[in-house]
Amino acid sequence: MKRINELIDTYKDYPKNGIEFKDVLGILQEPKLFKELILKMSTSQIIENADAIISIDARGFIFGSAISLQASKPMIVARKPGKLPGELLEKKYSLEYGENSLSIQKKALQKYNSYAIVDDLLATGGTVNCVSKILNSNDKKVTGLLVVIELMKLEGRLRLDFPIESSIIL
Amino acid sequence: MKRINELIDTYKDYPKNGIEFKDVLGILQEPKLFKELILKMSTSQIIENADAIISIDARGFIFGSAISLQASKPMIVARKPGKLPGELLEKKYSLEYGENSLSIQKKALQKYNSYAIVDDLLATGGTVNCVSKILNSNDKKVTGLLVVIELMKLEGRLRLDFPIESSIIL
Repeated sequence: MKRINELIDTYKDYPKNGIEFKDVLGILQEPKLFKELILKMSTSQIIENADAIISIDARGFIFGSAISLQASKPMIVARKPGKLPGELLEKKYSLEYGENSLSIQKKALQKYNSYAIVDDLLATGGTVNCVSKILNSNDKKVTGLLVVIELMKLEGRLRLDFPIESSIIL
Repeated sequence: MKRINELIDTYKDYPKNGIEFKDVLGILQEPKLFKELILKMSTSQIIENADAIISIDARGFIFGSAISLQASKPMIVARKPGKLPGELLEKKYSLEYGENSLSIQKKALQKYNSYAIVDDLLATGGTVNCVSKILNSNDKKVTGLLVVIELMKLEGRLRLDFPIESSIIL
């Protein structure tokens, strides 16, 4: 059986020159390894300490939803502009290649007090920082961040003031 | 305990005038019902007959990935433009409110012969039809479509020539 880090493909200069894109989707093609990963992520203290999971659009949904199923925790989502109906809490952020914003449904956020943030990859930490600021400014607690891949040299970890667990460090 | 169809919120005139948006995300806030739904979807013949699941960007990822975990089936994805690296198979489609295109990674598609398509909602069937055409034109078989919600009056079902299972009919 392959090891999980052998399933990560690298694409140079995607989506922009100078960016080395790490493609996490290969993990989904090995159900045993995917299950092993989800079991490990689901039993993290970061999940256990949280009322709910918040997963980030769109690859974060893949891992967040599987963890939600496995750990029996509710999940809400943070999405890119124009993707969520209803009253939204919105915040801009800058990322490696541009600027964007994330929104959370106000009605969904109100239901829980503490959140585990789930995404596929931690790079500079811009998106995660944005989500945690929306959470904090609405008096919600962040129990931590769970990602599959952490790009250590981009130092996203240094921008975040809560526990972080990553399964693959590149 | 609530019934699953009580968890679907309706938003009038979203994302455009005249559209009645059905928000499936509330299901994720009731872990027991989410699990029940995923167990049911995972044991469908449509999944059992397929080598792999293909889930549609982005809400389809939420259900596809949970089914992939539960049924131990590989999952690949169909994504909107600019979201996937590598060599892509791409096709345009028209939807209730505009036109778009979907892409599949060629390398991922080549690995399996038959696919169960997973999405959150069947409306006019435009996106699903697009995915099935990419699959068919690459000599892949579609075992069927699994969705959470089917909007019966939009008659998407009539455009598709494979089995369809929906959990909530609206």
